[in-house]
Amino acid sequence: MGSTISILIVSASPRKYGVARLVAEAARRMAIEIENVNAIKIDVYDYDIKPCKGCVSDDVMLCKVPCVYEDDMKKIYSVVEQADGMIFVSPVYWYNVPGPLKNFIDRLTVFENAIFIEGRSRLEGKVAGFIAVGNDTGALAVIQNLMVTLNSMGVAIPPWALAYHESEEDPIENKSFLLDVANVVRGVVLLIKALKGLEKPVYWYRIDQEYQRKVIEIFTNVANEFKKQKQTTNT
Amino acid sequence: MGSTISILIVSASPRKYGVARLVAEAARRMAIEIENVNAIKIDVYDYDIKPCKGCVSDDVMLCKVPCVYEDDMKKIYSVVEQADGMIFVSPVYWYNVPGPLKNFIDRLTVFENAIFIEGRSRLEGKVAGFIAVGNDTGALAVIQNLMVTLNSMGVAIPPWALAYHESEEDPIENKSFLLDVANVVRGVVLLIKALKGLEKPVYWYRIDQEYQRKVIEIFTNVANEFKKQKQTTNT
Amino acid sequence: MGSTISILIVSASPRKYGVARLVAEAARRMAIEIENVNAIKIDVYDYDIKPCKGCVSDDVMLCKVPCVYEDDMKKIYSVVEQADGMIFVSPVYWYNVPGPLKNFIDRLTVFENAIFIEGRSRLEGKVAGFIAVGNDTGALAVIQNLMVTLNSMGVAIPPWALAYHESEEDPIENKSFLLDVANVVRGVVLLIKALKGLEKPVYWYRIDQEYQRKVIEIFTNVANEFKKQKQTTNT
Amino acid sequence: MGSTISILIVSASPRKYGVARLVAEAARRMAIEIENVNAIKIDVYDYDIKPCKGCVSDDVMLCKVPCVYEDDMKKIYSVVEQADGMIFVSPVYWYNVPGPLKNFIDRLTVFENAIFIEGRSRLEGKVAGFIAVGNDTGALAVIQNLMVTLNSMGVAIPPWALAYHESEEDPIENKSFLLDVANVVRGVVLLIKALKGLEKPVYWYRIDQEYQRKVIEIFTNVANEFKKQKQTTNT
Repeated sequence: MGSTISILIVSASPRKYGVARLVAEAARRMAIEIENVNAIKIDVYDYDIKPCKGCVSDDVMLCKVPCVYEDDMKKIYSVVEQADGMIFVSPVYWYNVPGPLKNFIDRLTVFENAIFIEGRSRLEGKVAGFIAVGNDTGALAVIQNLMVTLNSMGVAIPPWALAYHESEEDPIENKSFLLDVANVVRGVVLLIKALKGLEKPVYWYRIDQEYQRKVIEIFTNVANEFKKQKQTTNT
Repeated sequence: MGSTISILIVSASPRKYGVARLVAEAARRMAIEIENVNAIKIDVYDYDIKPCKGCVSDDVMLCKVPCVYEDDMKKIYSVVEQADGMIFVSPVYWYNVPGPLKNFIDRLTVFENAIFIEGRSRLEGKVAGFIAVGNDTGALAVIQNLMVTLNSMGVAIPPWALAYHESEEDPIENKSFLLDVANVVRGVVLLIKALKGLEKPVYWYRIDQEYQRKVIEIFTNVANEFKKQKQTTNT
Repeated sequence: MGSTISILIVSASPRKYGVARLVAEAARRMAIEIENVNAIKIDVYDYDIKPCKGCVSDDVMLCKVPCVYEDDMKKIYSVVEQADGMIFVSPVYWYNVPGPLKNFIDRLTVFENAIFIEGRSRLEGKVAGFIAVGNDTGALAVIQNLMVTLNSMGVAIPPWALAYHESEEDPIENKSFLLDVANVVRGVVLLIKALKGLEKPVYWYRIDQEYQRKVIEIFTNVANEFKKQKQTTNT
Repeated sequence: MGSTISILIVSASPRKYGVARLVAEAARRMAIEIENVNAIKIDVYDYDIKPCKGCVSDDVMLCKVPCVYEDDMKKIYSVVEQADGMIFVSPVYWYNVPGPLKNFIDRLTVFENAIFIEGRSRLEGKVAGFIAVGNDTGALAVIQNLMVTLNSMGVAIPPWALAYHESEEDPIENKSFLLDVANVVRGVVLLIKALKGLEKPVYWYRIDQEYQRKVIEIFTNVANEFKKQKQTTNT
């Protein structure tokens, strides 16, 4: 019998074996192997997600489920709806999210706008966490935009809901980043449990040796798999 | 017998009868009269709060309780520590908080840095909400900075934790702002209860007639009292 | 014989007769009729602009002109290259630009990255201004991201390079917004002239009666034309 | 006979020998020794600068020169007024400027508000650049707030007007940061010259060997002097 809790990892990277997707996969496994919840992941670059056409600006009552577009968001909407929590993993493009992630965010409007159509945002009470990775500065700007946006859609945010790696260095060398990623996953799951009345959180940021060992092991495994797949792809 | 839940409203306005303090007082009463919790408020302009001197940059172990400064933060620290939640009410000064609120935030570092000294942030698991008021744009920039900062200190954020009024118009005319303020208070209290295992939230944003009536009544009473006191002060 | 100065107005709105496109057209006419320069406009929603695929993250030397994609940016790149200045007119989507404008910005990387390939950013020394319009808050967040991004690509920014309208009210009623828009256009042109050594700016923000009259006249004409075209389209 | 151009470096660090003051001194010398202009520096922590009391919110006509406060801003105002350009060097405190720098910014309102009192901002046409240093992320958030704020006060911004160092590593090891700092100084001076009609800029970002050698030499000298003074102070 699996957990009744499920989280969705949303990454946004054009690069199949880049850092963002690697972190997304590591986060997914941490959710499953450490937190014992269900977790799936998608990358917005793998789907056809049209830009929001702004119906809401013409008339707030026009923006309602189902969205006027018939594209891959159709199935993604149902994945989002079933998830108790979401974790975003974004690269930093000009101190901001890349365009395709912005399109995904904009298309969530139809769920938020349900507040006017159905009396309640379809995202209300879900939980989110935010991870940004880049070679340079700007991760914080990405995170603060995503955080305030999701919160404005009705989403709750656990303590320590952010992690960032701003460097050309291999993230595996950045132990505090790996721990932050793990604690984003942990926080999202703990808050979901608290909001469902399943478990009262005792403490949040976890840093014990056993945990660190497990986090680094998962991350190392994923990194090795990515390296192998990348080599296979290139040959 | 009072509630065991208490929240702290922190405003930051040099103007005794300005919008920020008015909203802070209304939020305090909503907490008490609608949410039935304890609530107190302070305005950072009424205290001597010295700027953080950045000990942490010299050595992370130097920034520990008690802070090196002997000023009004001494008593404010204990108020913060006892609060389960905090609601910030900031005016918008150049798309940012005013200097004295920034000093208050910077001085909270000693609580956050307890993660390195005591193994846990003294703010971890508290809950916060954010309100910004101004005559012009920039409220969102204020809110996103405060939100990501408090979250990075270990604070949890309920759904709909933001409210803003960006206009020279009397806020009493901006009904959706008043409701947003009330729901910031409501969200903070609901999340505190969930985290304490006291109550499982059923829904968040509240908008029913009874609630609206009560919110507007409280706000109107506070506005009238402020008007009267301002006239008395000026004569 | 016309001016040798030319500016490009870049809007980003899915709505043919929405406020962003209206303001873009008004800005174009102000450039031509008040500032006597050449001006053309594009809206990123009218073109096929693929998302940047992040070649630069694999190897900084891979991101070079021409971009790997064969889409409408091909002709837009040459329009950008010929322009002395750019004015962005963005709606506010979740305190940020809409996805398609982000894709346009990300695709400019190939011009900025010329600093590594050709020794100089192809945008260096150009001039930009920023306008954001929305029904709600967030315009400042949009503008600050665009401003720091363009500056990081080598673009100069004149005084008063920003204008915003954050309201459901008709922008024609917001006279200070109309003047701000006109002064964004004016500032961009004045700075181009100063950088070309054509003219030394004496003062920047212009507010005299003659100017106000002309600005309002242009804006009113464009608004009336948009209204007429919208009606024709709907019948 | 010296240059008629003068720039003001404004740093904001409580730490006498910290990175922010070191960078400010290096920028000052680059201005003098490479760009051949006058340059002075102040650190806001060395002065009594009271928080703005927001007179403008009571009545826009109340905020006029001289400011109601009689503190050290009195002499700083005249230094600002005489400067053709300003370069800010800020540490990153919670993804933002420290409180005392915010107080300085807020007190500049009286110069900006001259637009309503005297018909023109007293900062209009000045030029600014922005440097942020910290052990962690957030530099970009600091820079974008300062950039859009100064621009909204009427200040022009040259290409490449930003530099940041987000690391615990010694900045002397971060050569691209040192070059960015030098080019902030260079850009500010070039734009001042262009706006005064003294010189038409041919190119902006400079990276030649001779320049790099000079920049690193200046920075190294200042770093050594700081180290020596710090040791002397501690003994």
